[in-house]
Amino acid sequence: MTDTVPRRRGRPARDASETGPGTREKILAVARTEFAESGYDKTSVRGIAKAAGVDPALVHHYFGTKDEVFAAAVEVSFEPALLLPQLLAGGAEGLGERLARFFLGVWENPVSRAPLLAIVRSALTHEAAAKILRTFVLQRLLERIAEELDVPDPTFRAELAASQMVGIMVLRYVIQAEPLASVPTEEIVAMVAPTLQRYLTDAEA
Amino acid sequence: MTDTVPRRRGRPARDASETGPGTREKILAVARTEFAESGYDKTSVRGIAKAAGVDPALVHHYFGTKDEVFAAAVEVSFEPALLLPQLLAGGAEGLGERLARFFLGVWENPVSRAPLLAIVRSALTHEAAAKILRTFVLQRLLERIAEELDVPDPTFRAELAASQMVGIMVLRYVIQAEPLASVPTEEIVAMVAPTLQRYLTDAEA
Repeated sequence: MTDTVPRRRGRPARDASETGPGTREKILAVARTEFAESGYDKTSVRGIAKAAGVDPALVHHYFGTKDEVFAAAVEVSFEPALLLPQLLAGGAEGLGERLARFFLGVWENPVSRAPLLAIVRSALTHEAAAKILRTFVLQRLLERIAEELDVPDPTFRAELAASQMVGIMVLRYVIQAEPLASVPTEEIVAMVAPTLQRYLTDAEA
Repeated sequence: MTDTVPRRRGRPARDASETGPGTREKILAVARTEFAESGYDKTSVRGIAKAAGVDPALVHHYFGTKDEVFAAAVEVSFEPALLLPQLLAGGAEGLGERLARFFLGVWENPVSRAPLLAIVRSALTHEAAAKILRTFVLQRLLERIAEELDVPDPTFRAELAASQMVGIMVLRYVIQAEPLASVPTEEIVAMVAPTLQRYLTDAEA
């Protein structure tokens, strides 16, 4: 028995600064920025490693392939979604309004909007990225929401609500169609809340 | 006075087959395919000319810059939208249902869906393409719809309806989230029609 962790064969030696406790988070933050700025296609593990000041082997060590780095970046970008069960737990009354306000709140903040838009853009243009978004994030997220709903076909209902919010995102922030791009969020909430409410809570709808 | 059209200086001679009456349409069809298959970034006037079997100067002659070729391709792809005023003229009753069924009908046909998806993808990833979509097509289209509506902020209302349909398009055909990607169109129509109806006709909404 020994206290020293055996070095894996073939893995190059690193200095302490490279493998410190914050390194994984640092790589992830850099990866997010790289994917956001350059898109899925033009981002490489080598480029992420260079921007993070680490060896590419370390990126592979922490995350695996480029697709797995992307999946991790997607998950981090969807972190605000972890608050969804809390919103759902508030009960059916006013649910549509709470959800609409929550999503617009996240998106109105450019810091949280930028990586999300990048992820959505990548997913829209690259089958690999779409598959990752679908399998790793959307499916789990929608199923978690669906569990809380008391309607027929809850996953379908959750998807309909998601489709309304995705469409707002595309027209307001990406295509920037006016007046939708400039109206105060509360005007959008007022119009969209009854839609989400019906999809998520109306068994007859 | 003469019957012959003077050739512009510096423009090379072409044989008759290249400048025949269908050439413009042929170039446009090829451009649409090229933009659809390769995306905005990777499509060039040179590539379109090559695929159409014409001189690049001829593409410029008919359409102008790459952006203008793209705009023409976008307009052609949105041709089904020319039917919208007809649908609107049918009156308020059942409007949401007619519109939902119309859009899903266009999209369920892979021939009309492919170029539309390509356009949307390009617009989502390239500011130049987004601007063209916004200015050349979306604005005119939404304003034409808005003219027919008897609600406050009719353009905003038309955009909200568009956002719902764009979101369905993204989740059903691009990200292919299940079950939304596989449910029969009529199930989507049934859920989405009341949403469109409210946005487009309910003055109180």
